[in-house]
Amino acid sequence: MTDTTTLVDHYVAIWNERDAEQRAALIAETWTEDGAYLDPLMSGNSAAEIDAMIEGAQLQFPRHEIRKLGAIDAYNDRMRFSWELVNVDDGTRLLAGTDFATVAEDGRLSAVTGFLDE
Amino acid sequence: MTDTTTLVDHYVAIWNERDAEQRAALIAETWTEDGAYLDPLMSGNSAAEIDAMIEGAQLQFPRHEIRKLGAIDAYNDRMRFSWELVNVDDGTRLLAGTDFATVAEDGRLSAVTGFLDE
Repeated sequence: MTDTTTLVDHYVAIWNERDAEQRAALIAETWTEDGAYLDPLMSGNSAAEIDAMIEGAQLQFPRHEIRKLGAIDAYNDRMRFSWELVNVDDGTRLLAGTDFATVAEDGRLSAVTGFLDE
Repeated sequence: MTDTTTLVDHYVAIWNERDAEQRAALIAETWTEDGAYLDPLMSGNSAAEIDAMIEGAQLQFPRHEIRKLGAIDAYNDRMRFSWELVNVDDGTRLLAGTDFATVAEDGRLSAVTGFLDE
């Protein structure tokens, strides 16, 4: 199983990668093909849908990026970690949340459920 | 779909119900037959296993009960809520955690993943 820190680092990097080719490559490495994402604002039920969903979020939030907050809490094939969406120019926090993930046997993400903390 | 407050109230009541017959009845009402529970300390992969798992936890923690902490955060078929395990005699908190749940189409719990907060 991939190191959970690397997995979460890649997961966060995907949200911030605005080059379509590089984002798709990172998604293929990080998410299973049938990976599923759900939060109160959006959802994607395959790696391809997650790619399109993230592109949409990037267009909705220009000049913003996701940053991991605090430590990763992991056991077995589960983990949770928190994040914030900040303005890259002045560091203002727009949103924060906590994601719960299930890791597939091959070490990639199979499911992420997000909740908003603020 | 069952009201989420009622669902969580029943979920908590199951952890505290030490009468085997009443606990089994409450589990049948609250969990799907193939419901799955996992936390860092224990797991159950059916309603029957969850029943046995909870009985084991009760034997491990006599004179203790689970109490819900704070509000339920729910959307779609997902929810999260926090809890504490307290001594019923003096109110001392032994453990606290946050549970993430998926609700089946019939309104019962299909999966709960627990994390320890302290």
